[in-house]
This record gives sequence, structure tokens and C-alpha cells, in this order.
Amino acid sequence: MQVDLDKVKDECGVFGIYAPNKDVARLTYFGLYALQHRGQESAGIATSNQNDIQLHKDMGLVTEVFSEDVLAKLKGSIAIGHVRYSTTGSSLLTNAQPLSFRYMRGMVALAHNGNLTNANELRDSLGATGSVFQSTTDSEVIVNLIARYGQNPIEDALMKCMIDIKGAYSLLVMTEDKLIGVRDPYGVRPLCIGKLDGGYIIASESCALDTVGAEFVRDIEPGEIVVIDNKGLRSIKNLCSSRQALCIFEFVYLARPDSNLDGINVVQTRRQFGRQLAKECPIDADIVIPVPDSGIAAAVGYAEETGIPFEEGLMKNRYVGRTFIQPSQEMRDLSVRLKLNPIKSVLEGKRVIMVDDSIVRGTTSKKIVEMLRKAGVKEVHMLVSSPPILHPCYYGIDTSARAELIAAQNDLEAIRQHISADSLHYLSLEGMLASMGKQPDCFCNACFSGKYPIEIPDFKHMGKYIMETEVKHG
Amino acid sequence: MQVDLDKVKDECGVFGIYAPNKDVARLTYFGLYALQHRGQESAGIATSNQNDIQLHKDMGLVTEVFSEDVLAKLKGSIAIGHVRYSTTGSSLLTNAQPLSFRYMRGMVALAHNGNLTNANELRDSLGATGSVFQSTTDSEVIVNLIARYGQNPIEDALMKCMIDIKGAYSLLVMTEDKLIGVRDPYGVRPLCIGKLDGGYIIASESCALDTVGAEFVRDIEPGEIVVIDNKGLRSIKNLCSSRQALCIFEFVYLARPDSNLDGINVVQTRRQFGRQLAKECPIDADIVIPVPDSGIAAAVGYAEETGIPFEEGLMKNRYVGRTFIQPSQEMRDLSVRLKLNPIKSVLEGKRVIMVDDSIVRGTTSKKIVEMLRKAGVKEVHMLVSSPPILHPCYYGIDTSARAELIAAQNDLEAIRQHISADSLHYLSLEGMLASMGKQPDCFCNACFSGKYPIEIPDFKHMGKYIMETEVKHG
Amino acid sequence: MQVDLDKVKDECGVFGIYAPNKDVARLTYFGLYALQHRGQESAGIATSNQNDIQLHKDMGLVTEVFSEDVLAKLKGSIAIGHVRYSTTGSSLLTNAQPLSFRYMRGMVALAHNGNLTNANELRDSLGATGSVFQSTTDSEVIVNLIARYGQNPIEDALMKCMIDIKGAYSLLVMTEDKLIGVRDPYGVRPLCIGKLDGGYIIASESCALDTVGAEFVRDIEPGEIVVIDNKGLRSIKNLCSSRQALCIFEFVYLARPDSNLDGINVVQTRRQFGRQLAKECPIDADIVIPVPDSGIAAAVGYAEETGIPFEEGLMKNRYVGRTFIQPSQEMRDLSVRLKLNPIKSVLEGKRVIMVDDSIVRGTTSKKIVEMLRKAGVKEVHMLVSSPPILHPCYYGIDTSARAELIAAQNDLEAIRQHISADSLHYLSLEGMLASMGKQPDCFCNACFSGKYPIEIPDFKHMGKYIMETEVKHG
Amino acid sequence: MQVDLDKVKDECGVFGIYAPNKDVARLTYFGLYALQHRGQESAGIATSNQNDIQLHKDMGLVTEVFSEDVLAKLKGSIAIGHVRYSTTGSSLLTNAQPLSFRYMRGMVALAHNGNLTNANELRDSLGATGSVFQSTTDSEVIVNLIARYGQNPIEDALMKCMIDIKGAYSLLVMTEDKLIGVRDPYGVRPLCIGKLDGGYIIASESCALDTVGAEFVRDIEPGEIVVIDNKGLRSIKNLCSSRQALCIFEFVYLARPDSNLDGINVVQTRRQFGRQLAKECPIDADIVIPVPDSGIAAAVGYAEETGIPFEEGLMKNRYVGRTFIQPSQEMRDLSVRLKLNPIKSVLEGKRVIMVDDSIVRGTTSKKIVEMLRKAGVKEVHMLVSSPPILHPCYYGIDTSARAELIAAQNDLEAIRQHISADSLHYLSLEGMLASMGKQPDCFCNACFSGKYPIEIPDFKHMGKYIMETEVKHG
Repeated sequence: MQVDLDKVKDECGVFGIYAPNKDVARLTYFGLYALQHRGQESAGIATSNQNDIQLHKDMGLVTEVFSEDVLAKLKGSIAIGHVRYSTTGSSLLTNAQPLSFRYMRGMVALAHNGNLTNANELRDSLGATGSVFQSTTDSEVIVNLIARYGQNPIEDALMKCMIDIKGAYSLLVMTEDKLIGVRDPYGVRPLCIGKLDGGYIIASESCALDTVGAEFVRDIEPGEIVVIDNKGLRSIKNLCSSRQALCIFEFVYLARPDSNLDGINVVQTRRQFGRQLAKECPIDADIVIPVPDSGIAAAVGYAEETGIPFEEGLMKNRYVGRTFIQPSQEMRDLSVRLKLNPIKSVLEGKRVIMVDDSIVRGTTSKKIVEMLRKAGVKEVHMLVSSPPILHPCYYGIDTSARAELIAAQNDLEAIRQHISADSLHYLSLEGMLASMGKQPDCFCNACFSGKYPIEIPDFKHMGKYIMETEVKHG
Repeated sequence: MQVDLDKVKDECGVFGIYAPNKDVARLTYFGLYALQHRGQESAGIATSNQNDIQLHKDMGLVTEVFSEDVLAKLKGSIAIGHVRYSTTGSSLLTNAQPLSFRYMRGMVALAHNGNLTNANELRDSLGATGSVFQSTTDSEVIVNLIARYGQNPIEDALMKCMIDIKGAYSLLVMTEDKLIGVRDPYGVRPLCIGKLDGGYIIASESCALDTVGAEFVRDIEPGEIVVIDNKGLRSIKNLCSSRQALCIFEFVYLARPDSNLDGINVVQTRRQFGRQLAKECPIDADIVIPVPDSGIAAAVGYAEETGIPFEEGLMKNRYVGRTFIQPSQEMRDLSVRLKLNPIKSVLEGKRVIMVDDSIVRGTTSKKIVEMLRKAGVKEVHMLVSSPPILHPCYYGIDTSARAELIAAQNDLEAIRQHISADSLHYLSLEGMLASMGKQPDCFCNACFSGKYPIEIPDFKHMGKYIMETEVKHG
Repeated sequence: MQVDLDKVKDECGVFGIYAPNKDVARLTYFGLYALQHRGQESAGIATSNQNDIQLHKDMGLVTEVFSEDVLAKLKGSIAIGHVRYSTTGSSLLTNAQPLSFRYMRGMVALAHNGNLTNANELRDSLGATGSVFQSTTDSEVIVNLIARYGQNPIEDALMKCMIDIKGAYSLLVMTEDKLIGVRDPYGVRPLCIGKLDGGYIIASESCALDTVGAEFVRDIEPGEIVVIDNKGLRSIKNLCSSRQALCIFEFVYLARPDSNLDGINVVQTRRQFGRQLAKECPIDADIVIPVPDSGIAAAVGYAEETGIPFEEGLMKNRYVGRTFIQPSQEMRDLSVRLKLNPIKSVLEGKRVIMVDDSIVRGTTSKKIVEMLRKAGVKEVHMLVSSPPILHPCYYGIDTSARAELIAAQNDLEAIRQHISADSLHYLSLEGMLASMGKQPDCFCNACFSGKYPIEIPDFKHMGKYIMETEVKHG
Repeated sequence: MQVDLDKVKDECGVFGIYAPNKDVARLTYFGLYALQHRGQESAGIATSNQNDIQLHKDMGLVTEVFSEDVLAKLKGSIAIGHVRYSTTGSSLLTNAQPLSFRYMRGMVALAHNGNLTNANELRDSLGATGSVFQSTTDSEVIVNLIARYGQNPIEDALMKCMIDIKGAYSLLVMTEDKLIGVRDPYGVRPLCIGKLDGGYIIASESCALDTVGAEFVRDIEPGEIVVIDNKGLRSIKNLCSSRQALCIFEFVYLARPDSNLDGINVVQTRRQFGRQLAKECPIDADIVIPVPDSGIAAAVGYAEETGIPFEEGLMKNRYVGRTFIQPSQEMRDLSVRLKLNPIKSVLEGKRVIMVDDSIVRGTTSKKIVEMLRKAGVKEVHMLVSSPPILHPCYYGIDTSARAELIAAQNDLEAIRQHISADSLHYLSLEGMLASMGKQPDCFCNACFSGKYPIEIPDFKHMGKYIMETEVKHG
């Protein structure tokens, strides 16, 4: 359990490589390390030596799960890996990925980032005709669908799966001799292709390509299937999307600043959010400080635009490793102080603009404002570089249930009072979309607007879903 | 890895209990403890609290796998348990039982003693229509068949399974609210019913009933399905058997002496084998000694019939626990000496009749004869209380491949020379069958006669099967 | 449309023959001719020449459907035939039998007498997993089940079908090289085996064996599958029945007097009903007359027991052929007079006891009594040689919906008044059962007692079923 | 059987209409009448009244199959119709279309123009998992696939079907409330959309739209699914084609001159073939005559380009109706004379250029040349407005087996001698493609070039296929 900083929960990251004559397991290890910010609860790597598939996965950070010994046993020319955010519970390991299974055409491994909105429906339908399940993940539903379409080559089977499954998915599938990347028709989650010495890589974010020294080739398109085998790379563009809907929250918080998603640089976008915020909410103050790390880029943008000096007023104690201790409510109170430390010399007597990327429950913001006041600031103006989160996400990130979203339950003034700031401002949705440098309807912004691009489960299911919203993820 | 005493490998034991208001996990623990002789490699218990199924299993002896803590978590009113003989290998835990799964009608757990002869065929057929497999056990085939017949109530699904599966099986199936025992139409493996304070038990051998203080009710009949739920016990006799074919090797070696199988007492039968041996092979000698423990009853019978004094000439070091050290060839040589110790004072200068239940590869017999000679015996006459093992078993016990069976490759004189005995005699098949007190054709004696009562895989498959014969078991 | 004599509708008759070197189509033609009383609406014969299956079927009587030309084309060594009672309608031919189809193991033809009580449920279940239907018969459900179990040999597939299907069925199945007879576990409909010059016959009633010169061998037992091929005849007794439940109405009306069903002679049984009726209802009268033909045997028995003279007071105009004219209500009134003619010389001035086998709606009885009065009888005492029909049949005969059953809606006196008889008496259920010469619980008497031996569809479905009760049949 | 003029066999034509408040059956009748040239052996119409589907089909021409009475019974707001070329045989009616069936989502009817190249494979695969077949048509395979994907809405089911089926297909599917048109990803067979008073039509050729007074909207694109229901028309472009491959033979012979296929006018194209032929083969002659009707447009083009006068030298006796007489070899000789009559006054003493669209076996050409010589021509130069047919078609037209194709077995000079012409010239493939006014690779020209755009069955199957080539069609 990581210290809870009241952030939107990271989801999952995937990394795959097809590179005969390379140590694919080791490269995947480094790729997952670069994607660790997308999931810290479990990690796994499966490799294929063109004949058989080996798998190792466990709870923990990438550095905890894999040792030299383990990597040495993961031989082969193809690998896929997965990092996962996951809540605690006894069934955790069962739900870790990649999944590995044998079906009529041989062994297959699968790693999934995203969330299917019709997984229950499909599980019922598969169960009704004889499928057996070990876990409750939506990924096991995909496994069984692939097997049902086993009369078809794996590419055709995946095309049929894409007709069945609804929701967000960036998927890596490895057979004994192929690496396949699949992105849902809306392209909600990112997925990109890299090249390395004649081999290929498919990864959630471009930063993972940089880490292993690979060259960025292109993003996988919404609805595209990319197949890599000994004949090279080929693309199957089967399902047409009515529109792309890349998750805008990837730019707010989820993705690493040094990644490019569908051609858009993350850190530049965050700075632009800050500049836009400056235009929308000009405030008279002495310094601009970020809530590290996610608020830094927007704070820099704000400072640039306004000329108010940027300062590091809060120092972060970088957390490493994984503890098994469950957080008590008391710990939650402690947790912010364990993680962030105000620098009195910077703050004392100042009118401070504090920039953060988002507010979920508001608990952390409240504590930080408290800390700042204790550190002697005169005024605290909180600026948020995204709009209020009003709606839950059904596409693979854990925004908490609606009932816990502070902005869904309170108006602006009530939130300001709750966090005890002198003023509180959010970036407008229009301002955010204008900052993206692409048509607004290229992005999913359902958590802000409630406009869900992909069909979500009906109300009855949604009720159930909301109950489980902290368990379901990907 | 147990010290290898060159015995036919024990197979599996199952124990199930339906007893609301009892600590079913603990009772199953003791039941499995009583059946430990049927499998020492892995152990597992699944319990149902009428709503959900919990499972714990691991490699090791019953006493190693279960602790108070673990048993405390296995709550419920129904339980099934399994002990398994299994070869070493990385996939061991995957193959441990009970298996537990979710299908369209809910959770099911399954424990299987026996071996299906058409498992590969069924696995191919299920795979061809979309089933996914995690292991290579024949039990997972049964799991998937049950799910395929999920439109039917579990009893009807099992009736259909029995039409599909060929081979030997004594099966325990537990749903959320039922305990079901199934015995194949030939009744190859034993399975009996007991009663305990209004609850019911189904177990491989009657000795397990005694251990938990239950009263023996009856054996499950060949082809019978017995269902126990809150309405009591009912029987479905669906498949008629052309003949019963209880495994005669259960009486030679596998079962515990204090068990009764299909109405026949094991220890009495073994004594009768010894008496019959005395009639067939009267030998002039000073003492009769058994190879402990399996030769004791027959040695007693032989001594009774001939009047030659019975003596314990070999002391056994009781083995406890499980080591992970792989046996090297060198160890195999050592292993007999680690296990058996000749008592010089008893043996010195004597003409000795040594009685053992069977000879598989002959390696142990050779070492024991050597030991006896070093201990100063004048003559060693080896008597075997069963006929030569000439054929492999396809019904769930591991007699080793035909190539390793000393009697399949050598005549009597060659075996005698190999083990360096002064004389060697086997019980005749006729003599053995005459000792059973039932019609001879009630028993499977294929390992001696090559007459397989149930269809076995064809030659091509058999070839493959023989290769895997040390891996496949139940 | 036959003239409606207000009788329980005949159901279906089946005839199969395995006889290399015989003209099996012609023999089947005569066999169906003998069974014509069991169904007059459609007829069909399928033959197999060990390679392929030919089929001819049409609406009409056996003599109308088949010509020399047609029979000449139906070559082979195996044949099955079917006569069917069926209501009129555009879909008639689709529902005629035998059905013929190709599945993974080759061609199959099927003829069915009876009614499945869970056909809708099974059709839904098959449809839900991809089956396609051409008709609404329950027989097409069996066809699709056989195909679903196509991985199994046909005998095993039928065993599985018997686990799925509920209700009454006497079934003939012909593959390219086998003739198979199946009788449901309750044996509701009759089915018997005959022998002819080394060949075998399976038929609904023994009278069909007599007609083709075959020797009666035995009845097929409840739950038995009989397979006839070039290795001879073998029996599979797979499903145990909790009890036999032969339809007692076969003895009242449906079967031909010269048949023996499960060892009981039909005409003798009907006479015994008459004798029993004499004991239960002694009436002072001048003559006993039957309603021909079904009342004859009981009238003879009554006359024998009482000494009152038996006379033929009503002459029947034997009906031949099939008209397509739909009966108007007016025609119904006319129809009795077209069919039955009172013989004045016999009846005039007499006190008459009129014996019939049963009363369904009462319309015919009313007309006959009227006729008799016009013919000058002094008194008419109606005796019915079975108890009042109070409940619909779900096992393959068409007793009309409950709302139309006069006895279900009226008491004895009301019925008497309706038909204007001087007195009216039914045989008691106890008296009937006592006349059978077997344990009473060997018979299904649900139409009299409401005690259904086999699960019937639940109330909701039953409601629907009653609506369709004149369409569904077998 | 039509008089055999040694032409490539017409294949099938389809016509569908969605038009509430119109007499859809009657409009379909006229549509099929306009498409009669695409198939003269059987005709059928299915209509849906939004609740149920009615179907009438029979052997014969459209005018023979349908009467006022029959049309009157085919009520509804949607209809699909089919005309089929078919060889004679007992199973003809079984194979006639539309097919109609009930599956889990209700009633469906289907009409298919084209030929699947993997129908046997799919039939085996469906059969292996329980499908039952009544016919051997590839269309029944599609029916069963739709039912297998019955968990999906019909559009999604069709998308999955398109992943499974290979070959050429222009498909009409009618459910109770939808009309759906599907064209294979190569667009081998034509299919276009028309509009009529707010209703929609889908037809094989635009001439059918003209006939019923509908306005041409557009062609259905390769790989497109067009769905018409009460919400209007929507398009699903699911499968991308690597390339279009419209059958070029549609322009040579199959389509009606007044149709436009994928934007290309048929008669203009044929004229252009004639003009191109003039450039490639300038011949000194007195007149240009066509073999009517198929040679007319090319002859006109040739005359235009060369200035040589166009004359009608052969008079055609228009054939009406269908006879059941099988053609004997003798009849084949007679048949040309029954059909074509040389006009002596036009021909006598002339040097004649005779233009035909193609030569299949060469038998008709030979007879015509003979006729012309008898009519007194001085020279006969035969020009063929397409290249030699060297390869069989696997995509739905019957070019006869390779062994019968005169050009596949003989060189140009041998063919000239066979038909006794003074000279013989074919249009070059390059010249033909240059005449199309589109990129050459937009067309399938496999019958000329042997380059098959869509995977064909492997050699072993092809062997079998060639054997059946005159039976299989669409």
C-alpha cells in the first residue's frame, strides 16, 4: 500500500517486445520500470521462445518482483509485461497479469490496460455455454473469447473479439511466435510502437521506448491491430471508430511528462494548462508553488505566463518499495506529512499560489493548506489545472465512486472552505480543450463532462459497478 | 522426494464430508491423514459454507500443508480433500487437488482418484470448441465437461460426463450445497460411504471412516452417483457396468491393511495370499521374515500355514516429512540402506524366507538380499505374494513403464540371478484369484494378465502414454 | 379432416425394420397400414441403403401417400415409418415425420411417438447456442440434441439426450447402418420388438408385427435403447426408471384390440372393463349395445357378466380417405349421423344399455342418444368403460383442453342431463386398475386422476400449453 | 432447360426492398423480372410484416413461379427476392432461395449471389460442433454462422461472418424489421442502393431500380454492410479490402447493358471494347454483324471506329418460358438453329466481321460460321470482344470446367480451324483493361489471367471443385 495522496489511481501499463537475439525479459523489465507510475501493485513478464511460454508475476514493484535469477529463466525472443494498480485483497495474485493459457492453437499470454464495460454480460454469456473462470477480471473474458474463436487464426479471433467487447482496452497478446498489439476503436488508452535493432516494441507510453533505447515509430491507431512476427510488422485496420476518444486525464496526471501520446507531448500540455489557468484566473501573489510532482508543469506554465516567480515550496520524500500494512484512517492523516514537507524559508510571510493537477476527495489539499499555514504563509490560493471531477470513469481508471468525489457533492465555495484556502480556482473545460492543440472531440473528458463516448453499463449495473469501482480496474 | 523403495507408486486418496455443525475441515484433515499412504506429494482441502468455496492446497504431507491457522479459515458445512502422489516438476502445484472453479451454476470443487484413458481425446475435443486449460491433468477435463453440461443440474451433468469419460475414477464433487461421490462403471478404485452424527462421509478407504469415528454404511457401487445434501443421501444408478473390476493391486499393496474394500478385508486377504503361497511354494527354511511393511501380512500367513517361525529380520526407519532434494542415481543406491536395517541377531546363520508383496524394477530386492547376506544369512529365498507385474496400469497407478518392469523383460531365473536370491517364487495368478473369496472376474488384474477391462488408448497414444507414464497419475 | 366423433385424438405410430435382402419400404408400408388407427393425417417412410437415406412423406393416409412408384424408389435394407395425427394448417408438411438430416456423423432419420414436456426449454437452450429451426416440433429438438452430441457415437448421444428430454417418447432412429429404438424411462408409449427371417422390427404395437408376418420377441423396456445393426440386436439399459407408467388410455381406446402392450392383451382388458362395469353398475335392461368400434369389447364383457343379450344396435359407415374440407359447426352436428346409423328393428321398444369407451366433450353421446330415441327405444342407459376424463394429457395424446372436457366442468347428473340419457355410469378408477392384472402404479392414469408421473411444464407454461393443446401432439 | 448457346452461365440476382405502405412483394416481382437474365432456373420472394416472414419459391422463371394469388399472400413492408441459375437435379428446390429460418433472435431470410471458397471447411467446422444441414448450399453455411453469432445483434453477427467467409458474396438479409445488404471485401459481385418514396431498394444491378421507378443512390462499397430499418439507412464499413476486384465479366456478358456497376455503364464499356478491338484488329470487310444480343454493343463500337457498316445479319428468336426437357447431344446441335437465323439478303456475297462477347466451348461459334457460309458470305472474320477464357471462376459464375474451355486447351489457330472462320481475333487483356476507365487492379480478371484476388481452395479441394463446377453456383 502506497501512501495515499488522494490522487486518481494509476491504472495499468503494458510493454511488449519482439526481438530475436535480444534479452527480451531484461528489456521488458526496464520497460516496465519506466511505466511503473501506471501501476505499483503487481508486475509480471511472460516470454516465448517460439515453442513455449514462461511466466513470472507477483505482487509488488517491478524491482521487487524480478531478480536476476527469475529474469534468467525467462528466455525467448518475445516478451510481454504488465504493471498493475490493484487494491489489496486475498485474490490479488489471481488477478495479476499477464494471463497465460493453452487453447486449441497453442499457448497465449495477454496483458490488458483498460476496462471493459460489458465484461459481466460477456462472462455470463460465455459461462452459459460452458466456460470456466478462475478470476473475476475482464481480461479472463478476453482469454475465453479468443479460445471460442479458436477456429480462426489469432488475428481473426481478435477481430471478432473486438466486435464483442465494449470499453477501453490497449491489449498486448503474445502467442508462441507473434506479438500483437490491439487498441480499442476509441483509442481511450495510449499504445505506441517503437523499433530497436530490427526488433519491435509496443508500449503504453513513449517514455518506455526511450528507456530501452528504442526509436519511436508511431502510435497504434484506434481500432488497429498490429501483428509482429518473423515476417515483420503488419497492420489490420478492421474496426472503424466513429471518433477517437483518448483519455484526457492521461495529460492531466496519468502519463509520464516525457511521453508523447498520439503525437501530443505531455509536459508541454501541462504547461499550457498552467498558462491557460493564468489567463482564466490571474491572481496577485508573491510566489507560485506546485504540489509535487504532478503540479510542477502547470505551475511552471502559470509562472511563465504571469511573471510571478516559481518556487519549490514543498519537498517530496520519494517513496520506494511496497509495504503490506493496511492504511488506517489515522495513517491517512499522517500520510501527507510523511510525503510532503513545506520549506519554511521559501514560504514564510508569502502570498502563495499553489498549483495541483486535480482534486479527488480533497483530503490531501486540506492537509497541505494546513501545512502551508503552519509554515507561515500569508495567503494560499489553490489553482487546479483541470476542471472539477464530477463523474466516475468506466474505462480503466479509478476516480473513486461518485459519492467520494468532493466536486460531485459540493459547490466551489464549499470546497474552498473545506480545504481552507483563501481562494480556489479550477481550469475550465473549454480552457483545457483549447490547450490540447487538437479537435476537442478527439478526447474523452467524461470525468469532467459526463459525456461518455462508449456505451456504459445500464443504471442497474452501474449501481453495482459504482459499488465495486475501487476493486475493478486495469 | 521420498526415499525410493522401488514400489508401485501410491496414487491418490479422497475424503469428503457433509456435516453441518461440524468442523468439516478438521475432520477432513484427519481423514486425509488416514489416507496419507495413498499419496504423499500434495494435499488439499476445499470447504463450502453453502455460499462460497474456500480452498487450500500445497505440496507436502497433510501435516506439512495444514496448520491451525489454515484450518481455521476453511469454514463450512461441506468439505472435500485430496492427497496425491505426484512426480516432481515445476508444474506440481498446478496439478494439486482439489480443483476449484466457477461455472454457470456457481462454484464447484473436485477431487479425483484414478486415471482417464481418453483424457487427451476429450481435451482436444473441448479445446476445439473453445475450452481453455491451465494444467494437463485429466481432472481439468472433467471440470470442463461439467461446465459444458451446465444447462443440466450437476447430477445430470455428471451422468453425461460418465458417458464421455473412459477409465478409472472415484470422484468427489462439491458444489455450494452438495457433496457428490461418483464411481466409474467398473469400480476400479474403491469408494465408500460412512455416517457420522447425521452427517455423511465419502472416502477412498474405510480406514478413514474409522479414524474420524464414523460408521461404515456401504461401498458406492460401480457406476453409482451418490448425492448428499440437506435432503439427505440419494443414489443415482445410471450407468450399468458390464462387470465390476476392482483393482486387485489395492489388496496387494495400495490399500491400508485395516480397510475393507467392497466388503473384502485387506489384511485378511494378504494373509490368505501368504497361506496360498505356502501351498504353492513350500520351502525348507528356518525363519520367515517380511519386507516391512507391505510384506508383513503375507509373511504371517505363510508362517501360519507352514509352521516356520515368523521373525522381524528387517527394521524400518519410519520416514517422516518431505525433502526437496532430487534423488541422484547414487542416492537410489543409498536409499534402501537409509530405510531398512537388517537385524543381525535374528538373521545370522539362518536359512531365510523373505516375503515381499511385489517386485517392480528389482533394485530394492537386490539390495535387501545383499544386506541379508552381509548380515550372515545362509540362504535367502524370496517369495512374492503376487504374480509378476508384466503390464503397465492405465487406471491410475504408476507401475513404471513396461521397459522398467523387471518381469516384463526377464524370465524367473534371470530375475533370481539379478537379485542374487537362492530361490525366487511368485504367487500364481490363479492362486491369487482363488484367495479373493469372490468371482475372479470381479477384479482388474491387467498388470498381471494384460487383460484390460476398460478400453485403453490405441497403440500410437499408448506409446506416448508410456513415455509420460511417470507424470500421469491421479 | 375426419368426421369428428368426439374421441380422444389418436396420436402417432412408428414402425422400423432392419432386414437386408427384404423390400423394407413395402414392409414398412404394411406396418404403417396396420398402425393407421394411431394417426391419419400424415405418413412417411425413410429408407437407408447403408450409404444414404431416402425419404418420402406427405399429408394423408398411408394408402394415399404411397404409390408403387414411390415405394420403388425407397431402396435399402433399413426403414422407419411414421403415421401422425395432426391438426390442419399450413405448416403441416413441415411437421410430418420421419425427419431426415445430415450431421457430423452422416445422415439420420427419426420418427417420434409421444410428447416432450420440456421441448420449449430445450429449444430455447439450443437456440441460444446457435441452433437453427425449421419447424416447431419437439422432434426437431431431439434432432438438434443428437447433433450437439455428435462427438459421441449415436448410442451415447441418445443416452445423453435421454438425460435432457423429459416426457413421453417412443423413438425410432435410423442412421445409415443402424436401426435404434428408444423408449422413455416411464414407458408411457408402447414399443415392441419383432423378428422376421433374421431381420428385426420395432413397432408401436404388436398388431403391426402380425400384419407383416413377424414374430413378437418382447417389449422394449422403459428407459431401454435397442440397437440393431449387422452385428445383431443389443440392448443398452442406461436410465433406470423410478416406475413404469404405461398410458392406460392405450387400453381404453388408442391401441388396436389385437395388440399386446407390455404383455397385456388389449381386447381382453376391454372385456374385463365391461365385466367390472357390470359388477359396479348392474342395470335392468333388454339389450346391451356398443358404440362401435371402441365400445364393442366392453359391451361384450358387460353382456357376458350380466346375461343381458349383446346386440349391434348402431351400424358404422366405415370411413375411407381424407378430405380437405374444414368442419364447420354445422358439419359437426351432421357428422355423427353420417357415421352411425341406428338399426330400428333391433332397438324399437327396448330398454337399452349403451356402452362407450369414454366421453370427451359429450357432443357425440348426446346425438347418439337422440338417434336412439328417434329409433323408438324406451330407455337409454349409458355406461362408460373408463372413469371421467378430468385432466389434460401432456404425454402425446390430445384429450382437448380442460375447458372442453365435459367431466372437468360438470358433475355426473349434469352430464346425464346434457346427453339426455335415463342413467349414466362410469367405470371407477379402482375398478379399472383392478382389471389390469398388474400393479396399479405400472400405469399412467393422469387424465383420470391428475397424478402426473413425469414432471409437467410449470403453470405459466401449462397455460400456454393448454392454448396449444390441439396443435401439439405426436 | 434453356437452349444452350454455349455462354458463360448467368449466376444469381438479388433484389430487396424496405418500403412500408408499398406492395413490396409486387415490386420485388418486377425487380426480379428485370434481373431475370442473371438466373432462369428458380425464383423466390420472402416478405416480412415486422412480425413474421412468409416465403414462396419454386423452380422456373419469375413469371412462372408467381401468380396474383401467391403475391397477395406475401404481405409485409420488407421483401427480398432471388433468381438463380441452377443445374437440373432432384435437389433443386432445396437449394432455391431465399432461405428462411428461425434462430434465437427470431426469423431471418437470406438471398445470396456469389460463391464462398471455404464453404466446405466452414460446414465441417459447424457440423463438428452440432449444426444440422438440410442442403449443400454455401448459403446454408451463412445461415448457421449467423445463428452461432446469435448473441450478437444481426449486424455484429454479419461482421463476424465476414471474418469467417471467404469468396464472393453480395448478400441480402431480412429480419423481421430490417433489410440488410452485404458486399464482400473485394466487391466481386455488384450491389447497389436505390430510393423509392422514402423506401429503399438494394439490387444486383441498377436496371432493377429503373424498372420499379426507383432512383439510383449509390453502389454498396466492398466490405460494406448497409442496414435499413425504421430509423433509415446506415452504413457499417467494417472490413477493409486490400483492393476492389469487381468481376470484369459482368461487363463482358453478365450484366444488362442498361445497368451501371460501381459507376461504370455497361453498354458504353462494351462499345469501348469494340472500338479497342478495331484499333487492335483492323480488318478489311464489307459489314460488321453482332452475335445477338451480347455482341451488339461491341459490334456497334467496332463499326463506329472503323466506318464499316453495322448490320443485323442474325435474327434471334426470343426465348420465353421454361421446359423440363433435358438436352440430348443431338439437341445441342439443333439448338443454335432454333435460336439464331441468318438473314440471307444482308449476308450474301459479303465479307463479314462477326463480333461476339466471348467463346466458351466454341460449339456455338462453329455453328454460326457454318450458317453464315450456307447463307452465302464470302469471308467470316470472328472478333471476340474479350480475351480467351483460360481459367475457371470460383466466385459464383459457371465458366465450365477447365477441360471444356476451348481456349484453355487450344491455341488461336486451332480454335480458328475448329470454328472454320477465315480469321479469329480476341481483344487483348491490356486493351480490355484500358477500356475500363479505372485502375486495372479494380477488377477481377482471373478467368483471363489466372490471377485470383481471393484465396481459392487448395489443389486437392480444387480438384474436387472442378468436378462439381457445374453444380456449384450462386
